[in-house]
Amino acid sequence: MSKIGFVGLGNMGLPMALNLVKAGHAVTGYDLSAEAKAKLAEAGGSAAASLAELAAGVEVIVSMLPEGRHVEAVYGELFALVPAGTLFIDSSTIHVDSARKVAAEGTAKGHVVVDAPVSGGTVGAAAGTLTFMVGGTDAGFAAARPILEKMGKNIVHAGAAGAGQAAKICNNMILGISMVAVCEGFALAEKIGLDAQKLFEVASTSSAQCWALTTYCPVPGPVPTSPANRDYQPGFATAMMLKDLKLAQDVASSAGQATPLGAETAQLFRLFNDQGNAARDFSSIVEFLRGVK
Amino acid sequence: MSKIGFVGLGNMGLPMALNLVKAGHAVTGYDLSAEAKAKLAEAGGSAAASLAELAAGVEVIVSMLPEGRHVEAVYGELFALVPAGTLFIDSSTIHVDSARKVAAEGTAKGHVVVDAPVSGGTVGAAAGTLTFMVGGTDAGFAAARPILEKMGKNIVHAGAAGAGQAAKICNNMILGISMVAVCEGFALAEKIGLDAQKLFEVASTSSAQCWALTTYCPVPGPVPTSPANRDYQPGFATAMMLKDLKLAQDVASSAGQATPLGAETAQLFRLFNDQGNAARDFSSIVEFLRGVK
Amino acid sequence: MSKIGFVGLGNMGLPMALNLVKAGHAVTGYDLSAEAKAKLAEAGGSAAASLAELAAGVEVIVSMLPEGRHVEAVYGELFALVPAGTLFIDSSTIHVDSARKVAAEGTAKGHVVVDAPVSGGTVGAAAGTLTFMVGGTDAGFAAARPILEKMGKNIVHAGAAGAGQAAKICNNMILGISMVAVCEGFALAEKIGLDAQKLFEVASTSSAQCWALTTYCPVPGPVPTSPANRDYQPGFATAMMLKDLKLAQDVASSAGQATPLGAETAQLFRLFNDQGNAARDFSSIVEFLRGVK
Amino acid sequence: MSKIGFVGLGNMGLPMALNLVKAGHAVTGYDLSAEAKAKLAEAGGSAAASLAELAAGVEVIVSMLPEGRHVEAVYGELFALVPAGTLFIDSSTIHVDSARKVAAEGTAKGHVVVDAPVSGGTVGAAAGTLTFMVGGTDAGFAAARPILEKMGKNIVHAGAAGAGQAAKICNNMILGISMVAVCEGFALAEKIGLDAQKLFEVASTSSAQCWALTTYCPVPGPVPTSPANRDYQPGFATAMMLKDLKLAQDVASSAGQATPLGAETAQLFRLFNDQGNAARDFSSIVEFLRGVK
Repeated sequence: MSKIGFVGLGNMGLPMALNLVKAGHAVTGYDLSAEAKAKLAEAGGSAAASLAELAAGVEVIVSMLPEGRHVEAVYGELFALVPAGTLFIDSSTIHVDSARKVAAEGTAKGHVVVDAPVSGGTVGAAAGTLTFMVGGTDAGFAAARPILEKMGKNIVHAGAAGAGQAAKICNNMILGISMVAVCEGFALAEKIGLDAQKLFEVASTSSAQCWALTTYCPVPGPVPTSPANRDYQPGFATAMMLKDLKLAQDVASSAGQATPLGAETAQLFRLFNDQGNAARDFSSIVEFLRGVK
Repeated sequence: MSKIGFVGLGNMGLPMALNLVKAGHAVTGYDLSAEAKAKLAEAGGSAAASLAELAAGVEVIVSMLPEGRHVEAVYGELFALVPAGTLFIDSSTIHVDSARKVAAEGTAKGHVVVDAPVSGGTVGAAAGTLTFMVGGTDAGFAAARPILEKMGKNIVHAGAAGAGQAAKICNNMILGISMVAVCEGFALAEKIGLDAQKLFEVASTSSAQCWALTTYCPVPGPVPTSPANRDYQPGFATAMMLKDLKLAQDVASSAGQATPLGAETAQLFRLFNDQGNAARDFSSIVEFLRGVK
Repeated sequence: MSKIGFVGLGNMGLPMALNLVKAGHAVTGYDLSAEAKAKLAEAGGSAAASLAELAAGVEVIVSMLPEGRHVEAVYGELFALVPAGTLFIDSSTIHVDSARKVAAEGTAKGHVVVDAPVSGGTVGAAAGTLTFMVGGTDAGFAAARPILEKMGKNIVHAGAAGAGQAAKICNNMILGISMVAVCEGFALAEKIGLDAQKLFEVASTSSAQCWALTTYCPVPGPVPTSPANRDYQPGFATAMMLKDLKLAQDVASSAGQATPLGAETAQLFRLFNDQGNAARDFSSIVEFLRGVK
Repeated sequence: MSKIGFVGLGNMGLPMALNLVKAGHAVTGYDLSAEAKAKLAEAGGSAAASLAELAAGVEVIVSMLPEGRHVEAVYGELFALVPAGTLFIDSSTIHVDSARKVAAEGTAKGHVVVDAPVSGGTVGAAAGTLTFMVGGTDAGFAAARPILEKMGKNIVHAGAAGAGQAAKICNNMILGISMVAVCEGFALAEKIGLDAQKLFEVASTSSAQCWALTTYCPVPGPVPTSPANRDYQPGFATAMMLKDLKLAQDVASSAGQATPLGAETAQLFRLFNDQGNAARDFSSIVEFLRGVK
């Protein structure tokens, strides 16, 4: 059992923290929302009034925050409050450079810092079935793994500091592109008189096979569990996909790497998002491609 | 055993015809190349000097031609030369509208016409392991299937006339896009210090999984059998992928369907092809994205 | 005064034919619409019941038809009906290859054929201020010029057969792209707090200057005569711009030329058109880029 | 005559500082390069060993620095070193948010801060013919104008703080897109047999007219002074256009504005730049579009 401070109790962070409570850890939470902290306390955790209060006596910090600037600010404060040797696990999705910056700062102060962004969404967070892509030293990964296993089931060591973030944005950029590819395929099929089920049968057993098709099919029918069958309730919201695609473009731009389809896909989700679709599942972009009926 | 006339003995057509010979059919071939016809004759088939000679006594016509205009011209001639009820199997990759046009003409003259484009490349043609995507009536499909089974192992009935062509271009458009997506992911990973093998491990077990990654990985290492491990010898040549992507754009344009990533991917392969890469495997586009080193 | 047969009395063709009547020519019109023919007759022209009737005694044919296949069909029929030496002026916007095909056929039969697509829209057609981009021999251009001058004021000889069509689609592809460029600039300016009038002042006197900005400004205000100031009533409808951009893509595809921004712009107008904006001026695509307010 | 401190004596900054010397101002320069400072001193200016030395007694600071982080660092230091009421003119091209941040900080300390990025390149910097796009208060603009008039000839007040940067990136994004549009037009014309001079004549007098065509034509011939006529020696280098397009994407991304052609154009210049073309004029991208011959 560890004493864990959890920063950021939002849609993802709260269910993750609750899984740590369930596993028997002593979890103190901090968030701007009193309501979120109350839910943690009701479930057997406790709530801190400040980062200083959170820091008192913790062995492990886990964070789930919106952007790199939040992580940099919170970690900058906590690094000075906790004893040397504290383990920091940041599960936010942020810029690779930002992750490397906090890792370097924390390491310089004797802490152990890993980046561990997730995939799996709110469903995976609640069920404890998230995938964690971890960047950090071997020792950091070894230390973080038992904690992460209480919140997820697939824990991958992607490399040194920042590698978790790198793996996350590369993965999600490919996902965003391949989802639009699949949507274009189904929209075209419909226009030229090819039945969606038939396209699914051909493509899923051939060279067009991909997760966006076979697990998360963007049209109703072929994959009964996909959001297309529940009017595109997420799942993974358009606004979240847009955020990840923008982050991938920021990283690619600062690294000087051309990603023409990544850029185009970010633009398409921007256009689609801004027509009132932020909260719908990202696979509903198939409707944008189809036009009005 | 059927008497089969085979039109178009190129890189794909010749090995397909040879597999029909091996299966015991009486195959007469026609091609502009005397050399190709000689090879068929050496292997136990025979060569026709003209379409009229080819047509004499055949029960089945199989064709493998470059473009729709060739199919329209050849079929227009053959429809009048053969007895009513002849089975026509066109394995060329052509415009859906062109396939529907010849099917309508042939049907009007009492013939049975199916479109049956393939995937699997020259390797699959030689090995008899092609996938056939078939468009036509149930009766047409039933009649064609025993012939197709001698040349391939996955025979799918995609729907009515033209549906085979529709399935082929939708499939290959998704493939082209997802290949570039995967290449962008690996190129970005390299620039930001994420090991290719690590990206493969994460993406292949997560939401970025796709055939272009897990079966045909565009960087050397993760999938030993992929063309990246043999200096991008095809496999599936850039010029062939460009041809299919252009055809998909022609079909989408005439059908009035937006396919923004399909269009962009066709442009990228056009640019890459025109820098001297027509004969290299299409997955080598990863080098174009990386720039010079 | 010439005896002129005019084929295609639509939104563009009818006012063009009326200008020829006004100039003193004897104009016989043919169209599928009896109403259009009646309007020509009321204005002093006459109506033909068939192409054969139209052909009787004409010295010049002028045509304004939707697509290349219509031009090919009509010209194929007329070439055989009129005496050798007849002048054919096709003002339709069609594929370069199609224009060259009919020119070659007509020339082989002793006729003089020029392609002469227009810019200037229905306003220019009514006012007789169209620009004609003419492809044909020097003799053909010299013969056509006096006729064209009755319908337009800027008559340019772009080169041999097909060059008029080539000039038209190159011009309109650049126009379509630069309009979206200008719209992106204004939309971005708005989001980052730069006044539209200020952007206009800077850009119109600097390196971003273009016709789409300085003559046809897509936001209300800076250019009082632009469609933006009359709720985007055309002007030049989105559906017409889409048609030209698709044609440019068809030509570029068959010529094997990469046009990445031309392709992307065609896709954007496709998406915008299909959301119910076909009849609005093409500069209203600025609203699509802005998203909902 | 003012006492001016000039920070950043690079390819642009040095000739700008020299023009201030020529106009009779007392100019002290600071740069990391001793050679650059020596050139300023030889021409009648003086060199400072540190920002503190530069700050002593100055009335005006002019800066020309690579990126926003440099401006933020230098201004942060100088704001504390100079007396209240000092005029700061930043001619760097940086993020709008960065410009607004330093303006707010400087204003809070009683200084007058304007952003005044330029267009006109090294030729304009040497000749004193730059265009300045100025963001700041009316008083700030009035104070800066006499200084700017010694370095340029077109001084535009674009609005409040940051508006100069906003105008610059909107302008250059439109320029980058329209240049590629014009290049696509010429490349396509060449493939389909339309003479470049003829396309120029049509487009320059029609709706495709733009600065990239009529002043800076990317193919040799039509505009004798354009870089295409001197083997694409800049002019405006590809690397500089890429930098501005990336900045525009950063600004658009943080502002949440879709700019699909801006994004695509940034990617095309990235690909072209990375094939060894960074130092060539940006209009040479026409060769990339053409492919190898």
